[in-house]
Amino acid sequence: MAIVVKKFGGTSVGSIELIRSIAHKIAITHQEGESLVLVVSAMAKTTDELMRLAFEISDHPSRRELDMLLTAGERISMSLLSLALHNEGYSSISFTGSQSGILTDAMHGNARITDVNAFRIREELGKGKIVIVAGFQGVSPAKEITTLGRGGSDTSAVALASYLKADKCEIFTDVDGVYTADPRLVANARLIPEIDYELMLALAYSGSKVLHPRAVEFAYKYNIPVEIKSSFSFAPGTMMRSASNMENRKTFMEDKKITAIAHKDGLIRYQFNLEPKLIESLKKWNNEIFRYRFVEGVLELVIESKYENEIDHLMVSQGFDLYDKSSVWASISLVGLGINLDPVFLADLLDLLNEFHIESISHSDKTIDLLINSDNLVECLNLLHKTYIEESK
Amino acid sequence: MAIVVKKFGGTSVGSIELIRSIAHKIAITHQEGESLVLVVSAMAKTTDELMRLAFEISDHPSRRELDMLLTAGERISMSLLSLALHNEGYSSISFTGSQSGILTDAMHGNARITDVNAFRIREELGKGKIVIVAGFQGVSPAKEITTLGRGGSDTSAVALASYLKADKCEIFTDVDGVYTADPRLVANARLIPEIDYELMLALAYSGSKVLHPRAVEFAYKYNIPVEIKSSFSFAPGTMMRSASNMENRKTFMEDKKITAIAHKDGLIRYQFNLEPKLIESLKKWNNEIFRYRFVEGVLELVIESKYENEIDHLMVSQGFDLYDKSSVWASISLVGLGINLDPVFLADLLDLLNEFHIESISHSDKTIDLLINSDNLVECLNLLHKTYIEESK
Repeated sequence: MAIVVKKFGGTSVGSIELIRSIAHKIAITHQEGESLVLVVSAMAKTTDELMRLAFEISDHPSRRELDMLLTAGERISMSLLSLALHNEGYSSISFTGSQSGILTDAMHGNARITDVNAFRIREELGKGKIVIVAGFQGVSPAKEITTLGRGGSDTSAVALASYLKADKCEIFTDVDGVYTADPRLVANARLIPEIDYELMLALAYSGSKVLHPRAVEFAYKYNIPVEIKSSFSFAPGTMMRSASNMENRKTFMEDKKITAIAHKDGLIRYQFNLEPKLIESLKKWNNEIFRYRFVEGVLELVIESKYENEIDHLMVSQGFDLYDKSSVWASISLVGLGINLDPVFLADLLDLLNEFHIESISHSDKTIDLLINSDNLVECLNLLHKTYIEESK
Repeated sequence: MAIVVKKFGGTSVGSIELIRSIAHKIAITHQEGESLVLVVSAMAKTTDELMRLAFEISDHPSRRELDMLLTAGERISMSLLSLALHNEGYSSISFTGSQSGILTDAMHGNARITDVNAFRIREELGKGKIVIVAGFQGVSPAKEITTLGRGGSDTSAVALASYLKADKCEIFTDVDGVYTADPRLVANARLIPEIDYELMLALAYSGSKVLHPRAVEFAYKYNIPVEIKSSFSFAPGTMMRSASNMENRKTFMEDKKITAIAHKDGLIRYQFNLEPKLIESLKKWNNEIFRYRFVEGVLELVIESKYENEIDHLMVSQGFDLYDKSSVWASISLVGLGINLDPVFLADLLDLLNEFHIESISHSDKTIDLLINSDNLVECLNLLHKTYIEESK
């Protein structure tokens, strides 16, 4: 029996109308004999609102209680979607992360999945039911409720697809799939119909918000084909799979080619003189760093501006030795194979962007990464897309 | 009919005794019904010796004539190996890169493979012959002889395996396979029996000399399983394949794990103030850069010391604005999945290495890269291996 896991993010289930519409679309696209597992996030803004409430009550809410609070968000969206499916004439049942057997470590707020034991889902599928699962949440060895942190719901979906040996995992979101660049900023950006885990991982780490790196890594480890597609149109989107299973190779022989351009805007750069208390603080810091670099005693952290208050607070309370702080930066990454040992790529790039202020250029095995002033982001993105994607053979 | 491509590097065919021994081992391991293609490099030191002769005649030998000269190297090793196989009672025939249909662009000294049309090899295999092919060389559209540059012979072998739809490509070399760290420097390093393209590519770009990145990229694009093994023992080595075809996954669920540690010693760092003539020069520079970084107008190139004279010469003749030059650096890269958005890894690393001078730490999507004083290389490698590989669950 073919099993398909479909995941709907917060904006896809952001209102009663949207939930009804999703239920309707699921009903009309439902294939005879296909078993469905639907993983949902909390309705858009619910999590933020719950967080706001918690911080209204306490300046330092306990992570355990926060997790109890936040997991109510998916509980709401999953039961509403189940009710909407009943209206469509389907038999459906909703499960929390714990009921679904998403086992995690004990790190509240940023737990990692350690195992999946979704026998209840399998039982219900066997009875012909559509199963709806709360994404983003799990249960620790001590039976405490945990949340998975960023990228959590996508990771829940991929983990369940792996356990259930699903034929496919579909991530429904508010974009049509993975583009050669962000179509909101680059008018000529094209949808990429097929991409391999390798390049998708580089894109995800470079700021592409379509799929979180941890979900890509999970899919890659367990070889789960994942389709990223629009929850509004349900149209074919981007199929992510192993390079060996791709239908159309995007590069030929030893071609050196940029496949896509990722970016991340709204970045702040902190530079600290390294000292033991800073290291201790880093160990406890439960958020992501976008990029870091340590050079000659100075630790540079490039982070999203939403963490600014938190870092500033830490900085003052701990008395870190600040070397420099600056904003607003944007990062652009050219992603492709074979582009890095070649000095010509670097030289062409320096030529191409010579009228802009480039703060830094660095590279990895399949990215070339630029840090620029946020003001130049759109212009640079379009110029790079034109040169390396539109005009490239 | 199963086709196997076996490639022997320069040290594997470095003497008449070694060539005889290879021929003998091939004869005794040859399976009934298996077709063999043997790709060979020039005998060790032959290329250097030919280069020396060329530079004795001319300070600026033409790249075209150099390619004519250097390709004699593989011509010697391939015909000697063919003769040795005749002695073992086999029918064999040797082909140059051109005769083998390795088509390249016109970049003498650093050509890229653009297509393969190895019909002559297929014909001879059909007659039951063992085919021996000169690695590292090809032919341009204008029918000029080209050489492929670094990693060329491995890439020839993988490209032929792809054209012939070979069951396997075996790279015979002077090490037993891919290790968790260089076993010459880290006594406790372990052989990795199986690795995926993704991590191998990161290792190759980070200094692991076992396989050149371009050969890994080619194998990855065309999904060629490649075994790296010892030309002395012929024992099972490291199998490189797609993660989805791996027999044993090395990480579980969302584990964050360092798989291996790569390093590169003998590095020089140049820092130049950026100017147009430097960019023009980079465009023409036909060698690899190990790492580069551009920060606030200063271009930093980290290169192998063997290029030092060449760069110094360029620097003086072009009058580049040198900001700083320093040596001898070593690079160490921790390679694994899921290690990068996590501040804890960085903090632990800073703690662990606090008694050493760390020049810089940076990262990519699956590496954490350190630049240290060459003097500390062995001690740091062993400490990191002990902490992240031996003592890690």
